[in-house]
Amino acid sequence: MSQFINKKEDIVTDAIDGLIATSGGKLARLDGYPHIRVVVRNDWDKSKVALVSGGGSGHEPAHAGFVGQGMLTAAVCGDVFASPSVDAVLAGILAVTGPYGCLLIVKNYTGDRLNFGLAAERARAFGLDVSMVIVDDDVALPELPQARGVAGTLLVHKITGALAEAGATLKDITTAAEHIIASTMTIGMSLDTCTVPGSPKEDRIRNGKAELGLGIHGEAGVEQVDFNNAKVAIEQVTKKLSVTMQDVPHVALLNNLGATSVLEMSILARELVNSPIGKNLKWIVGPATMMTSLDMHGFSLTVFPADDVELKYLKVPTTLSAWPGVHEIAPVTVVNLPDGLKPIKPLPSQNKATREFLIRCCQVLINSEADLNALDAKSGDGDTGSTLAGAARALIASLDSLPLADHTQLYRAIGQELSQTMGGSSGVLLAIFFAAAGDAASSGLSMTDSLKAGLARMQEIGGARLGDRTMVDALLPALDELNTSLGSAAIAARNGAQHTAKLLKANAGRASYVNAQQLEGHNDPGAEAVARLFEQLGA
Amino acid sequence: MSQFINKKEDIVTDAIDGLIATSGGKLARLDGYPHIRVVVRNDWDKSKVALVSGGGSGHEPAHAGFVGQGMLTAAVCGDVFASPSVDAVLAGILAVTGPYGCLLIVKNYTGDRLNFGLAAERARAFGLDVSMVIVDDDVALPELPQARGVAGTLLVHKITGALAEAGATLKDITTAAEHIIASTMTIGMSLDTCTVPGSPKEDRIRNGKAELGLGIHGEAGVEQVDFNNAKVAIEQVTKKLSVTMQDVPHVALLNNLGATSVLEMSILARELVNSPIGKNLKWIVGPATMMTSLDMHGFSLTVFPADDVELKYLKVPTTLSAWPGVHEIAPVTVVNLPDGLKPIKPLPSQNKATREFLIRCCQVLINSEADLNALDAKSGDGDTGSTLAGAARALIASLDSLPLADHTQLYRAIGQELSQTMGGSSGVLLAIFFAAAGDAASSGLSMTDSLKAGLARMQEIGGARLGDRTMVDALLPALDELNTSLGSAAIAARNGAQHTAKLLKANAGRASYVNAQQLEGHNDPGAEAVARLFEQLGA
Repeated sequence: MSQFINKKEDIVTDAIDGLIATSGGKLARLDGYPHIRVVVRNDWDKSKVALVSGGGSGHEPAHAGFVGQGMLTAAVCGDVFASPSVDAVLAGILAVTGPYGCLLIVKNYTGDRLNFGLAAERARAFGLDVSMVIVDDDVALPELPQARGVAGTLLVHKITGALAEAGATLKDITTAAEHIIASTMTIGMSLDTCTVPGSPKEDRIRNGKAELGLGIHGEAGVEQVDFNNAKVAIEQVTKKLSVTMQDVPHVALLNNLGATSVLEMSILARELVNSPIGKNLKWIVGPATMMTSLDMHGFSLTVFPADDVELKYLKVPTTLSAWPGVHEIAPVTVVNLPDGLKPIKPLPSQNKATREFLIRCCQVLINSEADLNALDAKSGDGDTGSTLAGAARALIASLDSLPLADHTQLYRAIGQELSQTMGGSSGVLLAIFFAAAGDAASSGLSMTDSLKAGLARMQEIGGARLGDRTMVDALLPALDELNTSLGSAAIAARNGAQHTAKLLKANAGRASYVNAQQLEGHNDPGAEAVARLFEQLGA
Repeated sequence: MSQFINKKEDIVTDAIDGLIATSGGKLARLDGYPHIRVVVRNDWDKSKVALVSGGGSGHEPAHAGFVGQGMLTAAVCGDVFASPSVDAVLAGILAVTGPYGCLLIVKNYTGDRLNFGLAAERARAFGLDVSMVIVDDDVALPELPQARGVAGTLLVHKITGALAEAGATLKDITTAAEHIIASTMTIGMSLDTCTVPGSPKEDRIRNGKAELGLGIHGEAGVEQVDFNNAKVAIEQVTKKLSVTMQDVPHVALLNNLGATSVLEMSILARELVNSPIGKNLKWIVGPATMMTSLDMHGFSLTVFPADDVELKYLKVPTTLSAWPGVHEIAPVTVVNLPDGLKPIKPLPSQNKATREFLIRCCQVLINSEADLNALDAKSGDGDTGSTLAGAARALIASLDSLPLADHTQLYRAIGQELSQTMGGSSGVLLAIFFAAAGDAASSGLSMTDSLKAGLARMQEIGGARLGDRTMVDALLPALDELNTSLGSAAIAARNGAQHTAKLLKANAGRASYVNAQQLEGHNDPGAEAVARLFEQLGA
């Protein structure tokens, strides 16, 4: 299984370099690669409490992606799924901690606890004021005294980050962090395992199954459950959380574990809002990719009964693009459909000359049905003749309802008629042709100029240019000659149609998928139809 | 291949509902499900030019995720990878277009061109001022006259969105869009195909291969190339773009096609900055998930030589979390390592009584080596005795370099020594114990209270509570009795150690993975070591 990495041992430093280079100069790193991988704010003046987090890599954008004003001051990055060393953590603490002290926000894994813990002791020996909180929001194993720290950590980062930015003391920030941690619960579900660089992918979850209650290091979930659909998945997840949820408004955090499509995440969001715990969810962070397990096809859901102060700090905007913000969950507003979706039916009117002219045009197409089908069979599916003849028959049948006495309205009405009876792209293109011609006519252009405007719009939308082996090759030169005489137009159309037989590469329309040998010596059926129209109208 | 969806036919409406419900009330939808799926701004008053985009679904967050102040006014969503109907597009246009008109931003696919094109004609018949631009930024097939529209579309959305918000006219916005489109180029690469809901996953790309020049609808790339690593992948992609890139500063847009991990995207960003075209890349949008092909494990790179005005509007902040902003690309700033990573070596000093006391302690542990190993073999890997004895021998060997006359410094020095010689989590935990005790002693606490403070910190970090079958079970009661007498402390330690033999469930440390039968009747080796220490020191 390939991945967009270079050498396995450079994954974390390469990713950090990429993050910093694209941060707009807002981030920097400490010296000491590869052992010490610490991302720090580039604008940090130690004038407030510093917040340091981190742990194993593979959870991006956590944690380095949340370093910035209003969130973390530094992130200490270990290898993929491995705790950073005591020295690396100490380097991070020493680099950012000033007179207001430092809070370490640590996810509850033994390695992180010990290494951050000992680094904190060492930093204290330098007289620094260092606190540490341990996030243990995972409720997958409720009987386990050492619950894992997962996506709920983001809530701690955001709220304490805003508090620190507002100038709160280390003591108050630590207390706030402990309060968040005490009431935050998370559980995850996945349809597949993650791909650990350099390791074969585990084929643990069979199709039709999902793992419920998994961590963020590829470890197996607490149980495998039948996977049914998004709605049932959310029910299975929310059921675990609902056991101990209080009946108060909560913030939900819906986290993409890595490779779940944005489409799926939105569907999960819908099901969450409509789920049994939906009534207690008032705000939501995400759905977004925040605390991943590499490329895991799964999600985690965190619930947190924020009080007013916590909510206030959670809502403070940050410039960090990895933080999706918090939004109030609202019922879906449905706006009435606008008027005008049903096309305006023009008032029918009569005009003998126009009626006869239209019938003659239609008759030409009806009479050409077999010939045009035969031509089309050389490059397409042999139905151009039938399509045009069918539309012509339908047009004749609709003559009584058309505004024959109002030429401007008539163009649009014919376009409307063709778009309904012809179908396919040619129907849409001819509808565009007549609608645009009608627009032009209504603004006072002559018939020829109106038809030219229609053609221009059709070409713009359809993309066919002269020489692309389409009806344009006959229609364009014909319209150019139409002001001279119908006879000249007919000659131009015929010349154009004959020329298409020499065009060995079609650049637009279906014939573009056909090779040159099949096209040679055969006129394009659309161009042939146009030529016949002009020839027989002028005859 | 399971996906977090419900019924296949409800995918798009379910996802739209999820998006709207979590938009903080900023979005709404038009009535007309399931045929008409149009997402609109909920705060739109038609006081400016409206921007309407859309197309097939499966590209989330595009396009509905970019509806909001400063970007799109409405998004018209088709089925997955299928164009929306003319009626749906018309509904979108009619719903949001006021006296200032509407720009349609359409990706260059026949279905989208035709359906948006005809809808535009119909809207014009109502007297609305509607322009349309067609984005064709894909350069995978340079000889193709109809290049596809892909992620470069986002640049059009953002810049025209900011222009419209600033009150520009439809004519100026259309001209601006055409200017962006004329100079924007995109190409994509993928390591795997996407999973179209309801269709079997195509197994087209073999391991070790990558597809270069692919679209966003699961269609095959122009060529399959050998996949080497992230650096080479970026070279292959940038080579295609560099052919026609001008030697001026460009904006890069690095887009995740769906399922590429954030870690990989950062590595690709690094390689992009360092690539042959890196010198011409001055700003970057992303890396982020903007225009996806469902869950495709790939990326696309867009380059755009923005002029000053375009850059200004590109940089205008939006509140849309799907838009990652634009950042100047900057060299990675490396900050010097802080002082103090090497522990302060205390000045050695002599004190005969302390020296003899420490030697006695160490001797107890050395003499208990075999017994403690035997106990540990019941629940662990049988090395507790050797670990402690080894550390004790090392401590004796280091006595000449310790600050024996300064008890405060001595605690910390012992902690430092143990963390280096013991290794593993027990070494870290004892280092934390002694470091914290040293802290407490330096703030004037008594020896007993200092040791208690050390134990409290060690418990906090290690997570072991009384009754968890660890050394805490002997150490905590002993320290509680230490102010009474060393004898009482020894009795308390022994009682605590004996009690661990009855604790059939270990909650912390390695013994937590062992079953009850193996533990019964055997003291915890750590607790036993503590009991022996107190007993023999008090003897």
